[in-house]
Amino acid sequence: MVPEMLRELASHGLLHGQHPDAVMARVRVADSMSDAIAGVTYVQESGPEKRDVKAEIFSEIEKHADDHAVLASSTSIILPSLFTGHLARKSQCVVAHPLNPPHLIPAVEVVPAPWTSPDILERARAIQTEIGQSPIVMKKEIDGFLMNRLQGALLEECFRLLEGGYASAEDIDAGLKDGLAMRWSFIGPFETADLNAPGGIRDYIERYNGGYLKVYEKAQHRADWLGPALQEVERSRRTALPLEKIQDRQNWRDRQLMLLAAHKAATKS
Amino acid sequence: MVPEMLRELASHGLLHGQHPDAVMARVRVADSMSDAIAGVTYVQESGPEKRDVKAEIFSEIEKHADDHAVLASSTSIILPSLFTGHLARKSQCVVAHPLNPPHLIPAVEVVPAPWTSPDILERARAIQTEIGQSPIVMKKEIDGFLMNRLQGALLEECFRLLEGGYASAEDIDAGLKDGLAMRWSFIGPFETADLNAPGGIRDYIERYNGGYLKVYEKAQHRADWLGPALQEVERSRRTALPLEKIQDRQNWRDRQLMLLAAHKAATKS
Repeated sequence: MVPEMLRELASHGLLHGQHPDAVMARVRVADSMSDAIAGVTYVQESGPEKRDVKAEIFSEIEKHADDHAVLASSTSIILPSLFTGHLARKSQCVVAHPLNPPHLIPAVEVVPAPWTSPDILERARAIQTEIGQSPIVMKKEIDGFLMNRLQGALLEECFRLLEGGYASAEDIDAGLKDGLAMRWSFIGPFETADLNAPGGIRDYIERYNGGYLKVYEKAQHRADWLGPALQEVERSRRTALPLEKIQDRQNWRDRQLMLLAAHKAATKS
Repeated sequence: MVPEMLRELASHGLLHGQHPDAVMARVRVADSMSDAIAGVTYVQESGPEKRDVKAEIFSEIEKHADDHAVLASSTSIILPSLFTGHLARKSQCVVAHPLNPPHLIPAVEVVPAPWTSPDILERARAIQTEIGQSPIVMKKEIDGFLMNRLQGALLEECFRLLEGGYASAEDIDAGLKDGLAMRWSFIGPFETADLNAPGGIRDYIERYNGGYLKVYEKAQHRADWLGPALQEVERSRRTALPLEKIQDRQNWRDRQLMLLAAHKAATKS
Protein backbone atom coordinates (compact mmCIF):
# COMPACT_ATOMS: atom_id res chain seq x y z
CA MET A 1 0.00 0.00 0.00
CA VAL A 2 2.81 2.44 0.88
CA PRO A 3 4.83 1.71 -2.33
CA GLU A 4 1.70 2.32 -4.43
CA MET A 5 1.02 5.66 -2.70
CA LEU A 6 4.64 6.68 -3.21
CA ARG A 7 4.43 5.94 -6.94
CA GLU A 8 1.22 7.98 -7.22
CA LEU A 9 2.75 10.88 -5.29
CA ALA A 10 5.84 10.79 -7.52
CA SER A 11 3.74 10.74 -10.68
CA HIS A 12 2.09 14.01 -9.54
CA GLY A 13 5.40 15.65 -8.64
CA LEU A 14 4.67 15.42 -4.91
CA LEU A 15 7.80 13.52 -3.72
CA HIS A 16 10.12 16.55 -3.93
CA GLY A 17 12.10 14.94 -6.75
CA GLN A 18 12.89 11.74 -4.83
CA HIS A 19 12.51 8.27 -6.32
CA PRO A 20 9.76 6.17 -4.61
CA ASP A 21 12.26 3.34 -3.98
CA ALA A 22 14.64 5.74 -2.21
CA VAL A 23 11.83 6.80 0.11
CA MET A 24 10.68 3.21 0.65
CA ALA A 25 14.24 2.18 1.54
CA ARG A 26 14.03 4.47 4.57
CA VAL A 27 10.93 2.71 5.94
CA ARG A 28 11.63 -0.11 8.40
CA VAL A 29 9.32 -2.14 10.64
CA ALA A 30 10.86 -2.56 14.09
CA ASP A 31 10.42 -5.61 16.31
CA SER A 32 10.40 -3.77 19.60
CA MET A 33 9.94 -0.35 21.15
CA SER A 34 13.65 -0.10 21.98
CA ASP A 35 14.57 -1.02 18.40
CA ALA A 36 12.12 1.58 17.04
CA ILE A 37 13.01 4.44 19.37
CA ALA A 38 16.62 4.25 20.55
CA GLY A 39 18.69 6.99 18.96
CA VAL A 40 15.93 8.65 16.92
CA THR A 41 15.22 12.41 16.87
CA TYR A 42 11.46 12.21 16.35
CA VAL A 43 8.76 9.74 17.47
CA GLN A 44 5.19 9.83 16.07
CA GLU A 45 2.78 7.73 18.16
CA SER A 46 -0.46 6.68 16.40
CA GLY A 47 -2.08 4.21 18.82
CA PRO A 48 -5.75 3.94 19.86
CA GLU A 49 -7.57 7.16 20.88
CA LYS A 50 -7.80 6.21 24.57
CA ARG A 51 -6.22 8.28 27.32
CA ASP A 52 -5.00 5.34 29.40
CA VAL A 53 -3.59 3.49 26.40
CA LYS A 54 -1.69 6.60 25.28
CA ALA A 55 -0.39 7.13 28.84
CA GLU A 56 0.99 3.56 28.85
CA ILE A 57 2.51 3.81 25.37
CA PHE A 58 4.28 7.04 26.33
CA SER A 59 5.61 5.43 29.54
CA GLU A 60 7.17 2.78 27.31
CA ILE A 61 8.41 5.33 24.74
CA GLU A 62 10.24 7.43 27.31
CA LYS A 63 12.22 4.43 28.57
CA HIS A 64 14.03 4.21 25.22
CA ALA A 65 14.08 7.83 24.05
CA ASP A 66 17.08 10.13 23.83
CA ASP A 67 17.24 13.36 25.83
CA HIS A 68 16.48 15.58 22.85
CA ALA A 69 13.97 13.44 20.92
CA VAL A 70 10.58 14.97 20.09
CA LEU A 71 7.87 12.61 21.39
CA ALA A 72 4.74 13.36 19.36
CA SER A 73 1.23 11.87 19.42
CA SER A 74 -1.20 11.83 16.46
CA THR A 75 -4.24 12.17 18.73
CA SER A 76 -7.05 14.32 17.35
CA ILE A 77 -9.01 14.65 20.58
CA ILE A 78 -7.00 13.98 23.75
CA LEU A 79 -5.30 17.00 25.35
CA PRO A 80 -1.55 16.33 25.68
CA SER A 81 -1.70 17.21 29.40
CA LEU A 82 -4.02 14.24 29.94
CA PHE A 83 -1.52 11.49 29.04
CA THR A 84 1.98 12.96 29.58
CA GLY A 85 1.88 14.52 33.08
CA HIS A 86 3.21 11.36 34.77
CA LEU A 87 6.34 11.15 32.60
CA ALA A 88 9.92 12.02 33.52
CA ARG A 89 10.30 13.22 29.92
CA LYS A 90 7.01 15.17 29.88
CA SER A 91 8.79 18.28 28.59
CA GLN A 92 9.66 16.36 25.39
CA CYS A 93 6.00 15.55 24.56
CA VAL A 94 3.69 17.31 22.08
CA VAL A 95 0.66 16.50 19.98
CA ALA A 96 1.25 16.54 16.21
CA HIS A 97 -2.22 15.94 14.77
CA PRO A 98 -2.39 15.48 11.00
CA LEU A 99 -5.55 15.71 8.91
CA ASN A 100 -6.80 12.66 7.05
CA PRO A 101 -5.18 11.62 4.68
CA PRO A 102 -1.85 12.96 6.02
CA HIS A 103 0.21 12.29 2.87
CA LEU A 104 -2.11 14.56 0.86
CA ILE A 105 -3.07 17.30 3.34
CA PRO A 106 -0.08 19.34 4.58
CA ALA A 107 -1.62 20.82 7.76
CA VAL A 108 -0.43 19.28 11.06
CA GLU A 109 -1.40 20.96 14.29
CA VAL A 110 1.40 20.95 16.85
CA VAL A 111 0.02 21.34 20.38
CA PRO A 112 2.07 21.74 23.57
CA ALA A 113 1.10 20.57 27.08
CA PRO A 114 1.72 23.22 29.77
CA TRP A 115 5.08 21.52 30.45
CA THR A 116 6.30 21.05 26.87
CA SER A 117 9.64 22.80 26.43
CA PRO A 118 9.73 25.66 23.88
CA ASP A 119 12.74 23.98 22.28
CA ILE A 120 10.82 20.75 21.65
CA LEU A 121 7.85 22.68 20.23
CA GLU A 122 10.18 24.57 17.89
CA ARG A 123 11.95 21.36 16.80
CA ALA A 124 8.60 19.66 16.13
CA ARG A 125 7.70 22.66 13.94
CA ALA A 126 11.05 22.60 12.14
CA ILE A 127 10.92 18.86 11.43
CA GLN A 128 7.34 19.04 10.09
CA THR A 129 8.35 21.93 7.83
CA GLU A 130 11.44 20.07 6.63
CA ILE A 131 9.39 17.04 5.52
CA GLY A 132 7.02 19.29 3.55
CA GLN A 133 4.09 19.51 5.96
CA SER A 134 2.51 22.79 7.06
CA PRO A 135 2.75 22.93 10.88
CA ILE A 136 0.09 24.94 12.73
CA VAL A 137 1.75 25.64 16.08
CA MET A 138 -0.65 26.26 18.98
CA LYS A 139 0.55 28.33 21.93
CA LYS A 140 -1.43 26.26 24.45
CA GLU A 141 -3.87 23.36 24.46
CA ILE A 142 -7.66 23.58 24.23
CA ASP A 143 -10.34 20.94 23.51
CA GLY A 144 -10.59 20.31 19.76
CA PHE A 145 -7.18 21.94 19.20
CA LEU A 146 -7.42 24.39 16.30
CA MET A 147 -8.81 22.47 13.36
CA ASN A 148 -11.60 20.56 15.08
CA ARG A 149 -12.67 23.79 16.81
CA LEU A 150 -13.01 25.47 13.41
CA GLN A 151 -14.66 22.38 11.89
CA GLY A 152 -17.00 22.13 14.90
CA ALA A 153 -18.02 25.80 14.62
CA LEU A 154 -18.83 25.34 10.95
CA LEU A 155 -20.70 22.03 11.46
CA GLU A 156 -22.70 23.55 14.31
CA GLU A 157 -24.01 26.27 11.98
CA CYS A 158 -24.62 23.69 9.22
CA PHE A 159 -26.77 21.66 11.63
CA ARG A 160 -28.60 24.81 12.80
CA LEU A 161 -29.48 25.76 9.22
CA LEU A 162 -30.70 22.24 8.52
CA GLU A 163 -32.62 21.97 11.81
CA GLY A 164 -34.29 25.35 11.23
CA GLY A 165 -35.44 24.29 7.78
CA TYR A 166 -33.47 27.01 5.97
CA ALA A 167 -31.71 24.87 3.36
CA SER A 168 -31.06 21.27 2.32
CA ALA A 169 -27.91 19.34 3.25
CA GLU A 170 -26.90 19.28 -0.45
CA ASP A 171 -27.21 23.06 -0.71
CA ILE A 172 -25.22 23.60 2.49
CA ASP A 173 -22.37 21.47 1.08
CA ALA A 174 -22.67 23.35 -2.24
CA GLY A 175 -22.35 26.70 -0.45
CA LEU A 176 -18.92 25.55 0.73
CA LYS A 177 -17.55 23.63 -2.25
CA ASP A 178 -18.86 25.98 -4.94
CA GLY A 179 -18.47 29.09 -2.78
CA LEU A 180 -16.71 29.91 0.48
CA ALA A 181 -14.13 27.10 0.52
CA MET A 182 -12.81 27.96 -2.95
CA ARG A 183 -11.26 31.13 -1.47
CA TRP A 184 -10.35 29.54 1.89
CA SER A 185 -8.49 26.71 0.09
CA PHE A 186 -5.64 29.06 -0.80
CA ILE A 187 -5.96 32.20 1.35
CA GLY A 188 -7.76 31.32 4.60
CA PRO A 189 -10.61 33.31 6.20
CA PHE A 190 -8.58 36.24 7.60
CA GLU A 191 -6.87 36.93 4.26
CA THR A 192 -10.22 36.50 2.49
CA ALA A 193 -11.68 39.25 4.69
CA ASP A 194 -8.52 41.35 4.28
CA LEU A 195 -8.99 41.34 0.50
CA ASN A 196 -12.73 42.07 0.65
CA ALA A 197 -12.57 45.74 1.72
CA PRO A 198 -10.46 48.58 0.27
CA GLY A 199 -8.83 49.28 3.66
CA GLY A 200 -8.10 45.63 4.49
CA ILE A 201 -9.18 43.57 7.50
CA ARG A 202 -9.90 46.51 9.83
CA ASP A 203 -12.05 48.19 7.20
CA TYR A 204 -13.86 44.87 6.57
CA ILE A 205 -14.58 44.26 10.26
CA GLU A 206 -15.71 47.85 10.87
CA ARG A 207 -18.09 47.62 7.89
CA TYR A 208 -19.57 44.20 8.60
CA ASN A 209 -19.22 43.56 12.36
CA GLY A 210 -22.81 44.79 12.89
CA GLY A 211 -24.13 42.38 10.26
CA TYR A 212 -22.20 39.47 11.75
CA LEU A 213 -23.53 40.40 15.22
CA LYS A 214 -27.07 39.82 13.90
CA VAL A 215 -25.91 36.46 12.48
CA TYR A 216 -24.40 35.57 15.88
CA GLU A 217 -27.54 36.58 17.78
CA LYS A 218 -29.60 34.07 15.81
CA ALA A 219 -27.11 31.28 16.58
CA GLN A 220 -27.49 31.18 20.36
CA HIS A 221 -28.66 27.62 20.81
CA ARG A 222 -26.93 24.29 20.38
CA ALA A 223 -28.27 22.36 17.40
CA ASP A 224 -29.26 18.76 18.07
CA TRP A 225 -26.68 16.82 16.04
CA LEU A 226 -28.43 13.51 16.76
CA GLY A 227 -32.04 14.55 16.02
CA PRO A 228 -34.13 15.19 12.89
CA ALA A 229 -31.29 17.20 11.28
CA LEU A 230 -29.09 14.08 11.33
CA GLN A 231 -31.93 12.03 9.82
CA GLU A 232 -32.18 14.61 7.06
CA VAL A 233 -28.44 14.77 6.30
CA GLU A 234 -28.22 10.98 6.47
CA ARG A 235 -31.14 10.63 4.03
CA SER A 236 -29.45 13.12 1.72
CA ARG A 237 -26.04 11.45 1.88
CA ARG A 238 -27.36 7.91 1.47
CA THR A 239 -29.38 9.04 -1.56
CA ALA A 240 -26.21 10.52 -3.06
CA LEU A 241 -23.98 7.61 -2.01
CA PRO A 242 -25.06 4.13 -0.85
CA LEU A 243 -23.04 2.96 2.15
CA GLU A 244 -21.43 0.11 0.19
CA LYS A 245 -19.81 2.68 -2.13
CA ILE A 246 -18.19 4.70 0.64
CA GLN A 247 -14.74 3.13 0.10
CA ASP A 248 -14.88 3.96 -3.62
CA ARG A 249 -15.76 7.55 -2.81
CA GLN A 250 -12.93 7.76 -0.22
CA ASN A 251 -10.53 6.62 -2.96
CA TRP A 252 -12.01 9.25 -5.29
CA ARG A 253 -11.60 11.91 -2.55
CA ASP A 254 -7.95 10.95 -2.14
CA ARG A 255 -7.33 11.17 -5.90
CA GLN A 256 -9.04 14.60 -5.94
CA LEU A 257 -6.86 15.69 -3.00
CA MET A 258 -3.74 14.51 -4.82
CA LEU A 259 -4.75 16.46 -7.94
CA LEU A 260 -5.54 19.49 -5.76
CA ALA A 261 -2.18 19.22 -3.96
CA ALA A 262 -0.41 19.05 -7.34
CA HIS A 263 -2.48 22.02 -8.58
CA LYS A 264 -1.62 24.05 -5.47
CA ALA A 265 2.09 23.23 -5.82
CA ALA A 266 2.03 24.24 -9.51
CA THR A 267 0.24 27.58 -8.90
CA LYS A 268 1.96 28.60 -5.66
CA SER A 269 3.12 32.20 -5.70
CA MET B 1 -12.65 45.46 -18.32
CA VAL B 2 -15.44 43.00 -19.26
CA PRO B 3 -13.86 42.09 -22.66
CA GLU B 4 -10.55 41.37 -20.90
CA MET B 5 -12.21 39.12 -18.31
CA LEU B 6 -14.04 37.29 -21.09
CA ARG B 7 -10.77 36.63 -22.94
CA GLU B 8 -9.18 35.31 -19.75
CA LEU B 9 -12.17 33.08 -18.98
CA ALA B 10 -12.10 31.73 -22.56
CA SER B 11 -8.35 31.02 -22.36
CA HIS B 12 -9.01 28.82 -19.31
CA GLY B 13 -11.92 27.02 -20.95
CA LEU B 14 -14.46 28.71 -18.69
CA LEU B 15 -16.78 30.26 -21.34
CA HIS B 16 -18.54 26.97 -22.19
CA GLY B 17 -17.04 27.02 -25.70
CA GLN B 18 -18.39 30.46 -26.61
CA HIS B 19 -16.27 33.14 -28.28
CA PRO B 20 -15.69 36.22 -26.05
CA ASP B 21 -17.02 38.53 -28.78
CA ALA B 22 -20.25 36.53 -29.00
CA VAL B 23 -20.76 36.97 -25.25
CA MET B 24 -19.83 40.66 -25.39
CA ALA B 25 -22.32 41.22 -28.21
CA ARG B 26 -25.10 40.28 -25.79
CA VAL B 27 -24.12 43.02 -23.28
CA ARG B 28 -25.92 46.35 -23.74
CA VAL B 29 -26.03 49.48 -21.59
CA ALA B 30 -29.57 50.80 -21.36
CA ASP B 31 -30.50 54.50 -21.09
CA SER B 32 -33.51 54.03 -18.85
CA MET B 33 -35.20 51.58 -16.50
CA SER B 34 -37.97 50.91 -18.99
CA ASP B 35 -35.43 50.26 -21.76
CA ALA B 36 -33.49 47.88 -19.47
CA ILE B 37 -36.45 45.97 -18.03
CA ALA B 38 -39.40 45.86 -20.46
CA GLY B 39 -39.83 42.37 -21.86
CA VAL B 40 -36.97 40.66 -19.97
CA THR B 41 -37.29 37.38 -18.07
CA TYR B 42 -34.72 38.10 -15.34
CA VAL B 43 -33.62 41.31 -13.58
CA GLN B 44 -30.49 41.43 -11.33
CA GLU B 45 -30.39 44.59 -9.19
CA SER B 46 -26.95 45.55 -7.80
CA GLY B 47 -27.50 49.02 -6.29
CA PRO B 48 -26.21 50.37 -2.95
CA GLU B 49 -26.65 48.19 0.17
CA LYS B 50 -29.31 50.47 1.72
CA ARG B 51 -32.80 49.27 2.52
CA ASP B 52 -34.57 52.48 1.43
CA VAL B 53 -32.59 52.77 -1.79
CA LYS B 54 -33.37 49.15 -2.69
CA ALA B 55 -37.07 49.71 -1.88
CA GLU B 56 -37.14 52.68 -4.30
CA ILE B 57 -35.23 50.86 -7.05
CA PHE B 58 -37.65 47.92 -6.82
CA SER B 59 -40.66 50.31 -6.99
CA GLU B 60 -39.21 51.58 -10.25
CA ILE B 61 -38.35 48.07 -11.52
CA GLU B 62 -41.88 46.75 -11.00
CA LYS B 63 -43.39 49.53 -13.12
CA HIS B 64 -41.67 48.14 -16.20
CA ALA B 65 -41.48 44.41 -15.46
CA ASP B 66 -43.46 41.65 -17.13
CA ASP B 67 -45.81 39.41 -15.14
CA HIS B 68 -43.42 36.46 -15.11
CA ALA B 69 -40.04 38.18 -14.76
CA VAL B 70 -37.78 37.16 -11.89
CA LEU B 71 -36.85 40.33 -9.98
CA ALA B 72 -33.60 39.54 -8.12
CA SER B 73 -31.38 41.61 -5.84
CA SER B 74 -27.62 41.05 -5.31
CA THR B 75 -27.80 42.18 -1.65
CA SER B 76 -25.56 40.28 0.72
CA ILE B 77 -27.12 41.57 3.95
CA ILE B 78 -30.66 42.94 3.56
CA LEU B 79 -33.50 40.45 4.06
CA PRO B 80 -35.74 40.42 0.96
CA SER B 81 -38.82 41.01 3.14
CA LEU B 82 -37.35 44.40 4.17
CA PHE B 83 -37.48 46.05 0.74
CA THR B 84 -40.15 44.21 -1.27
CA GLY B 85 -43.23 44.13 1.01
CA HIS B 86 -44.70 47.34 -0.43
CA LEU B 87 -44.68 46.12 -4.03
CA ALA B 88 -47.60 44.94 -6.15
CA ARG B 89 -45.18 42.45 -7.70
CA LYS B 90 -43.69 41.32 -4.37
CA SER B 91 -44.28 37.65 -5.24
CA GLN B 92 -41.80 38.05 -8.14
CA CYS B 93 -38.92 39.21 -5.90
CA VAL B 94 -36.00 37.17 -4.55
CA VAL B 95 -32.43 37.73 -3.40
CA ALA B 96 -29.74 36.18 -5.63
CA HIS B 97 -26.52 36.88 -3.73
CA PRO B 98 -23.30 35.95 -5.56
CA LEU B 99 -19.90 35.61 -3.91
CA ASN B 100 -17.09 37.93 -4.90
CA PRO B 101 -15.87 37.67 -7.70
CA PRO B 102 -19.09 36.28 -9.25
CA HIS B 103 -17.58 35.33 -12.62
CA LEU B 104 -15.13 32.97 -10.86
CA ILE B 105 -17.14 31.59 -7.92
CA PRO B 106 -20.23 29.60 -8.99
CA ALA B 107 -22.23 29.74 -5.72
CA VAL B 108 -25.22 32.12 -5.69
CA GLU B 109 -27.62 31.99 -2.78
CA VAL B 110 -31.24 32.38 -3.84
CA VAL B 111 -33.38 33.61 -0.92
CA PRO B 112 -37.17 34.02 -0.93
CA ALA B 113 -39.20 36.55 1.05
CA PRO B 114 -42.26 35.04 2.80
CA TRP B 115 -44.36 36.15 -0.22
CA THR B 116 -42.05 35.00 -3.02
CA SER B 117 -43.93 32.59 -5.28
CA PRO B 118 -42.50 29.04 -5.49
CA ASP B 119 -42.60 29.37 -9.28
CA ILE B 120 -40.34 32.46 -9.21
CA LEU B 121 -37.92 30.76 -6.79
CA GLU B 122 -37.74 27.72 -9.07
CA ARG B 123 -37.20 29.89 -12.18
CA ALA B 124 -34.42 31.84 -10.43
CA ARG B 125 -32.77 28.50 -9.64
CA ALA B 126 -33.20 27.22 -13.19
CA ILE B 127 -31.80 30.39 -14.80
CA GLN B 128 -28.75 30.44 -12.48
CA THR B 129 -28.09 26.78 -13.28
CA GLU B 130 -28.48 27.42 -17.02
CA ILE B 131 -25.84 30.16 -16.99
CA GLY B 132 -23.38 27.87 -15.20
CA GLN B 133 -23.72 29.14 -11.63
CA SER B 134 -24.37 26.88 -8.63
CA PRO B 135 -27.60 28.11 -6.99
CA ILE B 136 -28.01 27.50 -3.24
CA VAL B 137 -31.77 27.76 -2.74
CA MET B 138 -32.88 28.77 0.76
CA LYS B 139 -36.33 27.73 1.94
CA LYS B 140 -36.82 30.94 3.96
CA GLU B 141 -34.88 34.07 4.84
CA ILE B 142 -32.61 34.54 7.86
CA ASP B 143 -29.98 37.20 8.69
CA GLY B 144 -26.72 36.45 6.91
CA PHE B 145 -28.51 34.08 4.52
CA LEU B 146 -26.55 30.83 4.24
CA MET B 147 -23.01 31.76 3.27
CA ASN B 148 -22.46 34.70 5.61
CA ARG B 149 -23.88 32.61 8.47
CA LEU B 150 -21.30 29.91 7.77
CA GLN B 151 -18.53 32.47 7.23
CA GLY B 152 -19.58 34.28 10.44
CA ALA B 153 -19.54 31.06 12.48
CA LEU B 154 -16.04 30.28 11.24
CA LEU B 155 -14.73 33.84 11.74
CA GLU B 156 -16.20 33.92 15.25
CA GLU B 157 -14.13 30.87 16.22
CA CYS B 158 -11.06 32.31 14.46
CA PHE B 159 -11.38 35.48 16.57
CA ARG B 160 -11.93 33.42 19.74
CA LEU B 161 -8.76 31.42 19.12
CA LEU B 162 -6.80 34.60 18.46
CA GLU B 163 -8.31 36.44 21.44
CA GLY B 164 -7.59 33.51 23.77
CA GLY B 165 -3.94 33.42 22.68
CA TYR B 166 -4.14 29.89 21.25
CA ALA B 167 -2.60 30.52 17.82
CA SER B 168 -1.42 33.26 15.49
CA ALA B 169 -3.55 34.73 12.69
CA GLU B 170 -1.12 33.22 10.13
CA ASP B 171 -1.50 29.75 11.64
CA ILE B 172 -5.30 30.04 11.74
CA ASP B 173 -5.34 30.86 8.01
CA ALA B 174 -2.88 28.00 7.39
CA GLY B 175 -5.18 25.56 9.22
CA LEU B 176 -7.82 26.33 6.60
CA LYS B 177 -5.82 26.70 3.39
CA ASP B 178 -3.38 23.83 4.05
CA GLY B 179 -5.96 21.75 5.91
CA LEU B 180 -9.74 21.85 6.32
CA ALA B 181 -10.65 23.89 3.23
CA MET B 182 -8.79 21.55 0.86
CA ARG B 183 -11.49 18.93 1.49
CA TRP B 184 -14.37 21.41 1.72
CA SER B 185 -13.40 22.95 -1.65
CA PHE B 186 -14.75 19.91 -3.47
CA ILE B 187 -16.95 17.93 -1.06
CA GLY B 188 -18.35 20.30 1.59
CA PRO B 189 -18.45 19.64 5.37
CA PHE B 190 -21.30 17.09 5.46
CA GLU B 191 -19.73 14.89 2.79
CA THR B 192 -16.33 15.31 4.49
CA ALA B 193 -17.83 13.91 7.70
CA ASP B 194 -19.70 11.22 5.75
CA LEU B 195 -16.39 9.92 4.35
CA ASN B 196 -14.57 10.08 7.70
CA ALA B 197 -16.25 7.11 9.41
CA PRO B 198 -16.85 3.57 8.09
CA GLY B 199 -20.63 3.87 8.64
CA GLY B 200 -20.97 7.33 7.09
CA ILE B 201 -22.37 10.53 8.60
CA ARG B 202 -24.43 8.86 11.36
CA ASP B 203 -21.44 6.81 12.47
CA TYR B 204 -19.24 9.95 12.40
CA ILE B 205 -21.68 12.02 14.49
CA GLU B 206 -22.27 9.22 16.99
CA ARG B 207 -18.51 8.80 17.42
CA TYR B 208 -17.55 12.47 17.69
CA ASN B 209 -20.63 14.36 18.93
CA GLY B 210 -19.30 14.17 22.50
CA GLY B 211 -15.96 15.66 21.46
CA TYR B 212 -17.64 18.45 19.53
CA LEU B 213 -19.87 19.16 22.55
CA LYS B 214 -16.71 19.92 24.56
CA VAL B 215 -15.54 22.19 21.73
CA TYR B 216 -18.92 23.96 21.77
CA GLU B 217 -18.92 24.37 25.56
CA LYS B 218 -15.65 26.34 25.36
CA ALA B 219 -17.10 28.65 22.71
CA GLN B 220 -19.91 30.21 24.74
CA HIS B 221 -18.91 33.85 24.58
CA ARG B 222 -18.87 36.36 21.77
CA ALA B 223 -15.32 37.27 20.72
CA ASP B 224 -14.57 41.00 20.49
CA TRP B 225 -14.00 41.47 16.76
CA LEU B 226 -12.92 45.10 17.28
CA GLY B 227 -10.51 44.62 20.21
CA PRO B 228 -6.96 43.29 20.68
CA ALA B 229 -7.66 40.31 18.37
CA LEU B 230 -8.31 42.72 15.50
CA GLN B 231 -5.09 44.60 16.29
CA GLU B 232 -3.27 41.28 16.15
CA VAL B 233 -4.77 40.10 12.86
CA GLU B 234 -4.28 43.56 11.36
CA ARG B 235 -0.61 43.57 12.42
CA SER B 236 -0.20 40.12 10.92
CA ARG B 237 -1.91 41.00 7.64
CA ARG B 238 -0.12 44.34 7.20
CA THR B 239 3.23 42.60 7.82
CA ALA B 240 2.36 40.06 5.12
CA LEU B 241 0.85 42.64 2.75
CA PRO B 242 1.22 46.44 2.87
CA LEU B 243 -2.10 48.21 2.23
CA GLU B 244 -0.86 49.73 -1.04
CA LYS B 245 -0.41 46.23 -2.47
CA ILE B 246 -3.95 45.08 -1.72
CA GLN B 247 -5.14 45.62 -5.31
CA ASP B 248 -2.23 43.52 -6.65
CA ARG B 249 -3.11 40.74 -4.24
CA GLN B 250 -6.82 40.92 -5.22
CA ASN B 251 -5.74 40.47 -8.84
CA TRP B 252 -3.56 37.52 -7.77
CA ARG B 253 -6.54 36.04 -5.83
CA ASP B 254 -8.72 36.32 -8.93
CA ARG B 255 -6.09 34.62 -11.11
CA GLN B 256 -5.79 31.84 -8.50
CA LEU B 257 -9.58 31.49 -8.45
CA MET B 258 -9.64 31.26 -12.24
CA LEU B 259 -6.97 28.54 -12.18
CA LEU B 260 -8.88 26.74 -9.41
CA ALA B 261 -12.16 26.98 -11.36
CA ALA B 262 -10.40 25.54 -14.43
CA HIS B 263 -8.84 22.81 -12.26
CA LYS B 264 -12.25 21.94 -10.74
CA ALA B 265 -13.87 21.82 -14.18
CA ALA B 266 -11.08 19.54 -15.48
CA THR B 267 -11.23 17.11 -12.53
CA LYS B 268 -15.02 17.03 -12.03
CA SER B 269 -16.34 13.51 -11.68
